[in-house]
Formats: sequence, structure tokens, C-alpha cells
Amino acid sequence: MAMVPEVRQLLQEDPGQLGALLEEIHEEDLADLLTLLDDTEAAQVLKSLKAEDAAPVFERLDEETQEALVEEMGVEQIASIVSEMAADERTDLIEALPEPVGDTLLETLEKVDPEAAAEVEELARWPEDSAGGLMTTDYISVRLDLRVSDVIERIRAVGEDAETVYYVYVVDADHCLLGVVSLRDLLLASPTEELSEVLTEKVFSVGPETDQEEVARAMAKYDFLALPVLSADRKLLGVITVDDVMDVLTQEQTEDVQRLGAVEPIEESYFRTGFWTFIQKRAFWLAVLFVGEFFTGSVLRRYDHVIAAVSTLSYYVPLLISAGGNSGSQSSTLIIRGLAMGDIRPGDWWRVLPRELAQGLVLGLILATIGMVRVWAWGDSLPFVLTIGATLVVIVIMGCVVGAMLPLLLRRVGLDPATSSTPFIASLVDVLGIVVYFSLARVLLADVIEAAMKQQGGG
Amino acid sequence: MAMVPEVRQLLQEDPGQLGALLEEIHEEDLADLLTLLDDTEAAQVLKSLKAEDAAPVFERLDEETQEALVEEMGVEQIASIVSEMAADERTDLIEALPEPVGDTLLETLEKVDPEAAAEVEELARWPEDSAGGLMTTDYISVRLDLRVSDVIERIRAVGEDAETVYYVYVVDADHCLLGVVSLRDLLLASPTEELSEVLTEKVFSVGPETDQEEVARAMAKYDFLALPVLSADRKLLGVITVDDVMDVLTQEQTEDVQRLGAVEPIEESYFRTGFWTFIQKRAFWLAVLFVGEFFTGSVLRRYDHVIAAVSTLSYYVPLLISAGGNSGSQSSTLIIRGLAMGDIRPGDWWRVLPRELAQGLVLGLILATIGMVRVWAWGDSLPFVLTIGATLVVIVIMGCVVGAMLPLLLRRVGLDPATSSTPFIASLVDVLGIVVYFSLARVLLADVIEAAMKQQGGG
Repeated sequence: MAMVPEVRQLLQEDPGQLGALLEEIHEEDLADLLTLLDDTEAAQVLKSLKAEDAAPVFERLDEETQEALVEEMGVEQIASIVSEMAADERTDLIEALPEPVGDTLLETLEKVDPEAAAEVEELARWPEDSAGGLMTTDYISVRLDLRVSDVIERIRAVGEDAETVYYVYVVDADHCLLGVVSLRDLLLASPTEELSEVLTEKVFSVGPETDQEEVARAMAKYDFLALPVLSADRKLLGVITVDDVMDVLTQEQTEDVQRLGAVEPIEESYFRTGFWTFIQKRAFWLAVLFVGEFFTGSVLRRYDHVIAAVSTLSYYVPLLISAGGNSGSQSSTLIIRGLAMGDIRPGDWWRVLPRELAQGLVLGLILATIGMVRVWAWGDSLPFVLTIGATLVVIVIMGCVVGAMLPLLLRRVGLDPATSSTPFIASLVDVLGIVVYFSLARVLLADVIEAAMKQQGGG
Repeated sequence: MAMVPEVRQLLQEDPGQLGALLEEIHEEDLADLLTLLDDTEAAQVLKSLKAEDAAPVFERLDEETQEALVEEMGVEQIASIVSEMAADERTDLIEALPEPVGDTLLETLEKVDPEAAAEVEELARWPEDSAGGLMTTDYISVRLDLRVSDVIERIRAVGEDAETVYYVYVVDADHCLLGVVSLRDLLLASPTEELSEVLTEKVFSVGPETDQEEVARAMAKYDFLALPVLSADRKLLGVITVDDVMDVLTQEQTEDVQRLGAVEPIEESYFRTGFWTFIQKRAFWLAVLFVGEFFTGSVLRRYDHVIAAVSTLSYYVPLLISAGGNSGSQSSTLIIRGLAMGDIRPGDWWRVLPRELAQGLVLGLILATIGMVRVWAWGDSLPFVLTIGATLVVIVIMGCVVGAMLPLLLRRVGLDPATSSTPFIASLVDVLGIVVYFSLARVLLADVIEAAMKQQGGG
């Protein structure tokens, strides 16, 4: 970033000027800037800001930098920044810190701002990737016996601290949700109207344990800017805002893509991820896939005498099993995506199966046609041409069926299909493919194999 | 959906009651319901709604159903619904219809609502997947010489038709953007304050030709609810709202995942996609990958005499090339994702290369250790054990380097790395892997191969 030298110079020569320079920069860009400075410089920059200006910057830093700055600036000073952070981000920070540091920070926060500490304790109850982990308690709630103008007055009074002012939640004495009213509806209504007349009573809500991806899909589908989180007895626990949900969509997307590429999800960006993290995230699935492929060796050994007699057969193995693998990964991609989007449920296997069978047949015939021409061009005999053609049809059908059915089966037994499908499908389709190939070859190429064996035995 | 029989019964017995039943349902769910009915029934349901209530439902239908309903209800009736639709959705609909139908609808719209037709002509100038294709012209703009209370009054007056009331755009006489003010800032300010005092002048904006994915990433990063689109001379052309951007994130995610699975992007959900669409989207890449794998056959043929002499060598081919393929797809996944997120630029290849070399070395050593144990357990001789070990190290390094460098190269020459990487990497790594394997075997297993050849020749 072009600003780094400028900031460094000011830090040394005239730190008092820093505030004026930084005022104009978006918090997100300021956070990017801090990660480019060393920790001492970053701490100086943060100190030059007022706590309420430092908070939105601090909450945007990655967890590693946050941890380093807690160390650098001391728990006391961080606590005053943290008390100004949004409740959900504050909780995420304290949970991400190493336990002793997080505990000390929470204790200090209890002295500086007991209310902020209580919010953390409330939000920390829920898993990070659930609706409860995503929600904030900084929302505006009112009672029903108000006029529109009173509600707008209330927004004016408390809006500064709320994460969103665009929805106001109406609750009863037990804090149970009665309905919601948008600021838009409030503005378009007459100021003297009763709140009950503009209230929307039918509110889409989620429970605190709802998976974050489900929350994100619902908000994207229904175009919500915020979504209330209710307990089982309909008490309002918190509100999820659209900005947090967009981050979830991006994060889940990265995880899905990485899982399909047989990499364990990596949180940080490529250049920020350490060497051993990469090894750790890659080695496991690489080893699992590798061990799975051992079976191809075992199966090929079973056809020892056939391969020894007609070694040409082995030249087609990579071509044939890759056709099965590719059609399998196409089908599993389509099904895994459908499951993630909610288009397909595990119980739909009987609707999926005939489709994949039919697609496999047509795709298999297409590849068989291309393959048979190539084999013929290589100068192999007609029985070879037929063996390759027949194997391709069977292998592609098998690839489609296995690729489509395995993710459904894995989901049904409670595993994540995106993580587990790839290795199973790869080795299963490869091994089955080899078995299909040599079984067909033994029938269609019986004469060729027998002649070759006789020749070897007799030669 | 449980409601279908209920709606069918009402349609036959008491269509007048339908409106009351449907009033309580979210437009999104109503759209889902319509797709479960046949076209005639869906048309009846739409007719039972007022045009302004039908519009948000109609704009949520998929393009196929929209087209069927235009046919069913006639252009006249659809035009009155379409004139109530959001400007961006209205444009998408008319563009998606077959040309003669779209043209007729636009002509009819010109009579019913000339302003709505003009908006369509304005928005249709930009590609569908650009900021211009995403933006709406239904925003609120004001001049600078107002007080806060005047602006709020103006929102009250025109807010009904605007896509978002949460941002007000301040423009000069030439409609150039001077700044933006959020409804939140307006509410928290004193009503008598000058607009210029609460105005944010530094506004993040995009041009109409900016790619929609870039827009989505920026809005997610900076937590914007809306983003202005400016022409080169800073004229305000339109506004992109967060709900449209969430759909873009989901859509781009689906496309990326499908491309990585070697499937051409499919727009509709699994069960709504027709048989021949699937074949079309799958056959091309399947055939390309298949033809690429022909080279494995050609290369294996070059080692004809070696394989004929020591057929055991061929048993390891699938195991070895899959190790290269898997490490290659891990690397390409990480790099393609990094490119999409903006973490990696094509010029970063020199930072990526040493990382992938080092990762490949460590991962290769891990697989080599496992592989050598397995080969030894199969009872193959020490030269075999060493050949497999050495090949694995070289192949995994090669997989990592090819998998990481090819997407960067493809991006540099202007191709989409997500689409084009997989087939190239798969066949390149497989073919190179076989060459590495047999080259190493010819050195490390020279004695074994020579002995076997002599025996065959002499036996």
C-alpha cells in the first residue's frame, strides 16, 4: 500500500498529525494498512486513534494481528477499545485469543464496562458457526404501546450504538418477539399512527443453533437485511445483520471449493498462511487418496497373467479410469452443490438415480465413439476396439452413479459430502474401472489373450 | 409444498378468496408455489393479485416460468405487472424473453408506462454480469441545498418506489455525484442541520462495466448496503443494492464449483435442469479431458519393450499419476481461489513458486515413505522400492508446481483459470508423471529390466 512510508514517517516525526491523516480512510483499508506495519508501529497508530475510532479498525484485523497487538498494547488499553467494538466481534476476539489472555481481557473488561462483558458471556454460549455465534445483541427493541413518532425518537436516542437501525424489534414484557417494523415503514407511515398498525407480525426467524450457512441462504433468498434469533420460547436473543452474512457466504464458499480440491479449509489468505499449515491441511487427504489408490495396484496384480501376455492392455488403464473419475467428479459436483443449496435432499436418490444412469449412458456412448476411433487409429485389432468401447460405456455410467449416490449416502449417515466424497469416489471408481476393463477384456479378447499365452509358453 | 392442493381447490371453487389466502405469504414462497402449479393455474393466481403485489412475485420466478406466463396471460396483462417491477428485474426479464416477445412487451410497456420503458432501455445498455446490469435506477437523489428535515420529507414522498431508502444520493445540476448520506445519519442529526454538514463526500463507487463479482467482493469487504455506479465523468447512473449482490455471490460460487468439477455453469437447480442441458454442459469437458488422456496411451507405448519385459512396472502407473494429479488439484484449488479473492495476482508467480516447490518436496517425501513401505510389503525388490519412492517425490513436486503455475499463466493470457486449468493440469501431470516414472525406472531398474529382456529373448 502506498501509504506505509508516509505513516512511518509521521510516526517518527509528528505522531500528533496521524489522526488527521487517518480520519479519511475507511476502517477496512486502515486494517489492511496496520497488517503491513510491524506490531510496534501498528500499536502506535491504534493508540493515536480514539477508542471508538480504533474499535472498528481493530475488529477487522485478522486474529493473529489482534493477538500480537494485545501483547504489544497491554490488556488495559485493549479493553477500552474492545468495549467499543460490536458485541459479536468482541466475543469472537475474546474467544480467538489464547485462553489466559482472553480470560484476563474479559476480567479487565468487567471492570471497565460490565455491560460489554456480560454481552460477551451471553454470546459466547453459542458455537461460532451457528446463528448464535453470528448474532449481535446491539439491536433496537421497543414495546408495543408506542406511536410511530415515539419509535423514531427512540431510534434517534439509541441508534448510535446499534448495529442496525433499519429494523426495530417489538417485544413484550418477557422479551418475546411480537413483530418487527422497518425504518422504511416507520418513515412512510404517519407519525401519529400506532406502532401496532405498521407492525409486521409474521417474522422469519431462526434458532440460535441454526447453522450459519442455512442462515446465509435464507437471508439471500428472502432479501433480508437483518434476521432475529429466537429461543425455543420465542424470546429475542439477538439479531443477525446482512454484512456478517456476506462474510459467511464468502467463507463457506472458500471452504467448499477447498474441500472439493481435497484441501482442509484454510482460513487465512494464501500468502498469510504458514508453511506447516499448508502441509497439515494438504497431507492428510493426499495420504488418504494415495492409500485408496493402493487398491488399483492390488487389482492390477490379480490380472498379472493377462497383462504379461497382452501388455497393450495396460496402456489403456490411465485413459479408462480417468474417464470414470472425471464423470464421477462431474456428478458429485452437481449433487454436492445441490445439497448445499437445498435443491436436493438425501431422500431424493430415487429421482437422481435414473437421471444419472441416462446421462451416463449418453456420455459413455460419446466417449466410446471417440475412444474407438483412437484405438483403431493406433492400429489395435477390432476386439480391442470393441473392448475399449464397451468398457467406456460401463465405466462412465458407473462414474455417474457412484459420483451421484455417494454424496447422498454420506449426507444420510451424517458426514459432510463435500469433504468425504472425493477420496471415496476417486479410489472406488478407479478400482471398479480396472475390474470392469479386465473382466470385459477376458471375454471380448479371449482369443487374443489365449494366443499370446500359448506363444509365450511355447516361445 | 403443502399449499398446492388448497390453492387448486380455491381456484376451482372460490377464486375470490385467493387474495386473502395469498396475502400472508412471502413473495419468495409465493414464487416457489407458482412453479409447482401448471401454467394456467399460475396465471389465474397472478391475475387474482393486484399488479403491484404480482410484480414482486413475478420478478422472483425463473426465466422459463416467466416466459410461459407471458404466453399464457398475454403481453397486455404482463405489461401492467412489469411496470410495477423493480427497474433492474424488469430489464432482466425483457432481456431474457425470446426477442420477438421481449420487443412486443417493451412496445406495450412504452404505451402503458413510458418511464418504465425508458428505464429498461437505459439499463439494457450494460452487460448482464456487470455493475450496469446489476444496478437499479430506483434510488433517491436530492440536491445539496437542503436541510436534514427536507431530505427526510423527500424520502417520505418518494420512498415507496425506491429500491432502498437507506441511502440518499446528493447530486449537482448535471447529476454528478457530490456525496451520500445514510438514513441513519439523517435520523441521528438534528432536523435543522444543513445537508452539507452530514454529507459523506468520499464515496466508494464503481463504473458500469465493473465485473459483478468484483462489485460483490467490494460490498462484502466494506459492509455496504448499497453502492453507486458512476460514469467516467462521475454522473450517477444507478445504485446496486446488497440483496442483488448476495445473489451474485451465490451464483458465482455455484459457477466456480461447477467449473472446478469440469462442468460448464448450469443456471437452474438440479431437478429443473433438462436432460440435454446436462449432456451439453458435461460432454464438452469430459471429451476434452478424455482426448488429453490419449497422450498417456501414446507415452506408455513408447516404453513398450520395458513394460513387456517387466509388467510389474505397469501396476504402479495409476497410483503414481493419481498422486501427481491430486497434489496438482490441491495447488490449483488454492491458487484459483486466491486469484478469485484477490489475494494473489498473476505477477506473484515468483512468490508462489518457491512455496509450492517446498510444499511439494515435503508432501512428496511423506507419500514416498508410505509408498515405499507398501511396495516393500507387496514383495517387490529394493530397486523397485527406490524407484517408486524417487518417482513419488518428483511427481508430487511437479504436480504442485504445474497446478500452481498454470492458473497464473492462464490468467495472465486472459483465460478464466477456473475453467481451463483442470483439463490441462490433469493430462499434463499424468503424461509427465509417466515419463518421469519410466525414465527413473530405466536408470534405477536397469539391471532388472536387462535381465528380464534377456530371459524373454532367450526363454
